[in-house]
Amino acid sequence: MSFNIFGRLFRFTTWGESHGPAIGAVVDGCPPGLALSEGDIQPWLDLRKPGTSKFTTQRREPDAVHILSGVFEGRTTGTPISLMIENTDQRSKDYSEVAKAYRPGHADYAYDAKYGFRDYRGGGRSSARETASRVAAGAVARLVIPEVDIFAYVSEIGGDAIDMRNFDAEEIGRNLFFCPDAEAAARWEALVDGARKDGSSLGAVVECVASGVPAGWGAPLYAKLDSELAAAMMSINAVKGVEIGDGFAAARLRGEQNADPMRPGSDGPVFLANHAGGIAGGISTGQPVKIRIAFKPTSSILTPVETVTRDGEASDIITKGRHDPCVGIRGVPVVEAMMALVLADQKLLHRAQCGEQPG
Amino acid sequence: MSFNIFGRLFRFTTWGESHGPAIGAVVDGCPPGLALSEGDIQPWLDLRKPGTSKFTTQRREPDAVHILSGVFEGRTTGTPISLMIENTDQRSKDYSEVAKAYRPGHADYAYDAKYGFRDYRGGGRSSARETASRVAAGAVARLVIPEVDIFAYVSEIGGDAIDMRNFDAEEIGRNLFFCPDAEAAARWEALVDGARKDGSSLGAVVECVASGVPAGWGAPLYAKLDSELAAAMMSINAVKGVEIGDGFAAARLRGEQNADPMRPGSDGPVFLANHAGGIAGGISTGQPVKIRIAFKPTSSILTPVETVTRDGEASDIITKGRHDPCVGIRGVPVVEAMMALVLADQKLLHRAQCGEQPG
Amino acid sequence: MSFNIFGRLFRFTTWGESHGPAIGAVVDGCPPGLALSEGDIQPWLDLRKPGTSKFTTQRREPDAVHILSGVFEGRTTGTPISLMIENTDQRSKDYSEVAKAYRPGHADYAYDAKYGFRDYRGGGRSSARETASRVAAGAVARLVIPEVDIFAYVSEIGGDAIDMRNFDAEEIGRNLFFCPDAEAAARWEALVDGARKDGSSLGAVVECVASGVPAGWGAPLYAKLDSELAAAMMSINAVKGVEIGDGFAAARLRGEQNADPMRPGSDGPVFLANHAGGIAGGISTGQPVKIRIAFKPTSSILTPVETVTRDGEASDIITKGRHDPCVGIRGVPVVEAMMALVLADQKLLHRAQCGEQPG
Amino acid sequence: MSFNIFGRLFRFTTWGESHGPAIGAVVDGCPPGLALSEGDIQPWLDLRKPGTSKFTTQRREPDAVHILSGVFEGRTTGTPISLMIENTDQRSKDYSEVAKAYRPGHADYAYDAKYGFRDYRGGGRSSARETASRVAAGAVARLVIPEVDIFAYVSEIGGDAIDMRNFDAEEIGRNLFFCPDAEAAARWEALVDGARKDGSSLGAVVECVASGVPAGWGAPLYAKLDSELAAAMMSINAVKGVEIGDGFAAARLRGEQNADPMRPGSDGPVFLANHAGGIAGGISTGQPVKIRIAFKPTSSILTPVETVTRDGEASDIITKGRHDPCVGIRGVPVVEAMMALVLADQKLLHRAQCGEQPG
Repeated sequence: MSFNIFGRLFRFTTWGESHGPAIGAVVDGCPPGLALSEGDIQPWLDLRKPGTSKFTTQRREPDAVHILSGVFEGRTTGTPISLMIENTDQRSKDYSEVAKAYRPGHADYAYDAKYGFRDYRGGGRSSARETASRVAAGAVARLVIPEVDIFAYVSEIGGDAIDMRNFDAEEIGRNLFFCPDAEAAARWEALVDGARKDGSSLGAVVECVASGVPAGWGAPLYAKLDSELAAAMMSINAVKGVEIGDGFAAARLRGEQNADPMRPGSDGPVFLANHAGGIAGGISTGQPVKIRIAFKPTSSILTPVETVTRDGEASDIITKGRHDPCVGIRGVPVVEAMMALVLADQKLLHRAQCGEQPG
Repeated sequence: MSFNIFGRLFRFTTWGESHGPAIGAVVDGCPPGLALSEGDIQPWLDLRKPGTSKFTTQRREPDAVHILSGVFEGRTTGTPISLMIENTDQRSKDYSEVAKAYRPGHADYAYDAKYGFRDYRGGGRSSARETASRVAAGAVARLVIPEVDIFAYVSEIGGDAIDMRNFDAEEIGRNLFFCPDAEAAARWEALVDGARKDGSSLGAVVECVASGVPAGWGAPLYAKLDSELAAAMMSINAVKGVEIGDGFAAARLRGEQNADPMRPGSDGPVFLANHAGGIAGGISTGQPVKIRIAFKPTSSILTPVETVTRDGEASDIITKGRHDPCVGIRGVPVVEAMMALVLADQKLLHRAQCGEQPG
Repeated sequence: MSFNIFGRLFRFTTWGESHGPAIGAVVDGCPPGLALSEGDIQPWLDLRKPGTSKFTTQRREPDAVHILSGVFEGRTTGTPISLMIENTDQRSKDYSEVAKAYRPGHADYAYDAKYGFRDYRGGGRSSARETASRVAAGAVARLVIPEVDIFAYVSEIGGDAIDMRNFDAEEIGRNLFFCPDAEAAARWEALVDGARKDGSSLGAVVECVASGVPAGWGAPLYAKLDSELAAAMMSINAVKGVEIGDGFAAARLRGEQNADPMRPGSDGPVFLANHAGGIAGGISTGQPVKIRIAFKPTSSILTPVETVTRDGEASDIITKGRHDPCVGIRGVPVVEAMMALVLADQKLLHRAQCGEQPG
Repeated sequence: MSFNIFGRLFRFTTWGESHGPAIGAVVDGCPPGLALSEGDIQPWLDLRKPGTSKFTTQRREPDAVHILSGVFEGRTTGTPISLMIENTDQRSKDYSEVAKAYRPGHADYAYDAKYGFRDYRGGGRSSARETASRVAAGAVARLVIPEVDIFAYVSEIGGDAIDMRNFDAEEIGRNLFFCPDAEAAARWEALVDGARKDGSSLGAVVECVASGVPAGWGAPLYAKLDSELAAAMMSINAVKGVEIGDGFAAARLRGEQNADPMRPGSDGPVFLANHAGGIAGGISTGQPVKIRIAFKPTSSILTPVETVTRDGEASDIITKGRHDPCVGIRGVPVVEAMMALVLADQKLLHRAQCGEQPG
């Protein structure tokens, strides 16, 4: 089955291909009475928008969102919110070679193996263009969780990591890399530009923090908050790894190093550390929820790679066209959107079972 | 909501607490006509069973499984398979202190924050004991996917990793650590025993490989095979990180390094590398599916940790009782079970949409 | 897929066959903190219990329920509640003939066509015995909706209907037919006993009323309260028809006859009629929710019926063994349970989306 | 929660209001490789289209469908199929009074009670206009089940039933009432026109038959085919009753009258009757699947009805505007669509669990 629906109560369905007339999302289960207009969604889409610098794909899309349903007199009605974004800069001519041979690292071969054929234009459904729909849906989700503050940033590109001592949240919006370390951002200019000129690509690590999440969201066992977040992030194109809190580093610690001691505080316990990333037993603890996500380098590169054609012949392929030298960069607003979507869903799930007041 | 159900078509529900009369799983959606008896399940439970060495908890449970429904004349009928495992070695007396104060790193505080109170005996529902139910359900899942061969092993304990040049699959069953490197296994004896004597605990990394998965399982976008596996693994107690294929290492590669070139083969394409872990675009490629999982060190340690009581008072706590010095070790059969459960589900999902033959 | 799970947030999974060791239900998603013991469940099971009069099957089952998980110190913990009822009066010898030939009107042929074989003992999974699990789960659901009062009764047996002018709710518990009309109950004694002596069976109509349901439960469009109730009732063995409010009678009315006029009241609108059965646009209006359910006569009769064997040979079959002459009678507590299960789920769904206070 | 998603594997989400810019459906889980164009959908929409005679609402909508995704080179790709229908004949001016007072029998009060406010223009989301989305999605579903032939017809309007001896399937397409009895159709002309002139409305009964359904579709217990169909039909606006096979009439039969005897046939058993409506134990038997649906008279009438305003004041209301004197008539293509959608889903579910070949 092709599951293009995400979420349990606050749910959205996305549709659309890279080179079709439009893409979109239908948000179902949104609480009624929330103030919502295109103006609440567009700024987030603009952050993800392609064509804004030489560090992102040169496809130019205004990515203007239209609300087609579910809002009346400026407020959500509780019925489905249909969001549509028209595709305006499709160029099918770029993709003729892809129709014949499989691009290694891309979904081409797997789609053919599953479905028997595929829309090869611009990656079709597997194009990162789909993530615009998530960002639009995520903007609605944010309205459901005003108590939560979410921010994400790139912490590493091509193995070059930020220095946490330089961390400055304000810096994230000042450079083209969503980088909180001005020095790293400066280094990355050369790094990413070099990859772009080489026709190569770079991987990246994105980190996301959600503060203000109250204790009690999430659920044992198969809907642990860790699980939901991991599934959400792994559904983003090019993501191949997810860590909650210390993640793999925790596997190298001893129990006493990994503990997050607690002390009495004025408003519930105060934690002295956050190795757990704000989640214990699958349920939020009230600490910031922290997650790290690994983006592989895109497989769209100009270096020829050995491959096979649909007919089973040996071939070489280079991926011409317009591509991101580092897809992880534009992944930042997508990661934030998925965080918002998971948390909005969890908020509704929690009050379903436990009522408005925890416990 | 408390989601204790996993899977979409091949689904199971688990129930039971550490110190209740029994635990169990109900498997729903199993194909009919499969030969199944307790003998198909028990060996996998025996691998996970506690009390078998000084490197695991000293709780002694036979973990004998009973099939209560869904099998007639030795074959599955297509109706729900109820599996029950009685608890025989509960000792409630060990847990009196836990009733009062929260163990940092455990689910205690989060459960209280969510539900208002909790079954504090042995961790209640958050006990790793629940994973026995998964192993039982996973044994049924294996019967659904006879074409797939799954094996997992510990690749790292407390930061001490195996040397892949020593890898010997046969070795996994010969030592108490599910370790494929005899030299590492020898080192780990001292390492884990030291942690046990110190009343400390160690984290671990488990790797799991599923070979024989045909190309075409999985689905875009929110049910990507990567997503399903990540959610499955993150739902296991103590897991805080998941990587598919190269995972975070891929974030440090350039596009041409990360490509998995293809050549024509006698039975479909042959891949020259497997950085992607057998999954592209969320769909299996026919290569082995590879995943790495990070287990944190258990928070049950004898070193006092600062904490608060239910009444909000400052306190220290040490976690007496019977615990695993390295929970990752017994995580190996659990990881295998979750892999089997995901793949069985995906097989059914794939043939639902695409029929018996891919494409 | 074999869906043995009912509900969206307040969910239960049932398992077990007529002649297996036990049957049971796992309730997931129950709110925490509700007082629950076997004593809250057993009385409802006793109402459904077989072998209590000559008007029900002579199978004798104590139907004693055991709570295996999810309750601690007398309260629900929010984790899965496993309920088990042992089978004590299975007699496999009665069913040898059924193994060979299909009983028309029973699930025998359909199960074989679907699964390739079946547990033929006592109907296996398709036995009405499964409904005990629903009644047990329903008893838990009732605790979630203390504001709602549910009662059901038999309004018609074999075409002989009650006279609503004789309606006396107190009478329901005084006769063996759950009949609110003492005169009808007297007539039915002879009617049902005659059918029993003839080795025949009778259909029945059950009506169920839930009062106290606040306005606002349910949801457009595919989860309309009408839809949820219809699905719930149609899932009960032998049910072939469902009406909400006036049902088919409404199809014979004109718009002005079918209106439910409203007047201002002290606590919201007062309705002057209830043709709609308490539901408009799929959402409760605050009026009593009313539903009618048609039970067919059981196909277990002593009159020989033409049939075919598994090998495709012509044959005659009579269904010996222990059966209900009118299964609709024992359907009453099952209908009440399903009503409670739907409403508990809807209550949680409503507060998820709209919060504790409607609107 | 607002569930606007229907189905399990073959699923669709609908969105849109009566007076928004458009309505639509997103079909997810469709098998790949099916030939699909707008031309496969439009004829079914034309059957449901308003404004085609004096017996339907005078709203004039071309109901032209656009496929926005999921189809490439004329075939379904297995990815979501987005279908959009623009609204062209909205007239908001007709609905000013409705904003203030609740129309009894309509969803107005219930929506307000649930959501706190509502889009009152033309019924908003509760408008029967939404059913166009179902008809569009149903047209795709039909392609998934070419082995099945579905037809529905009106069997009763305002209590005036067809005579089954006059039944002529060809006649259905010849009159404006989808009536298989030419004599009844002639009577209904006067009947419906009279109601229209009176500003009144009439209820109706629709019957639907699906032949060619193989034995084995459906599943015990909470996904019985009866349950799925009942839920599907009850989700249609104005539906208040559903019968499978003999339905309520079966409740008046004795067991021997209700049996469907079987004889050996050349291609599996032959049934001598079909009281069960082609479903036993929740699973199809290979006989035609038969269902009857009760549509209430629409509550939009010109006779003043007592009501209350949003402010709780007593008032009278008459429902001006454009309405169907008998909504059951245009329900026929909607019922067919829901039948197709359920059966397509069941086909996929069956092959998921049991493979391509039953048993």
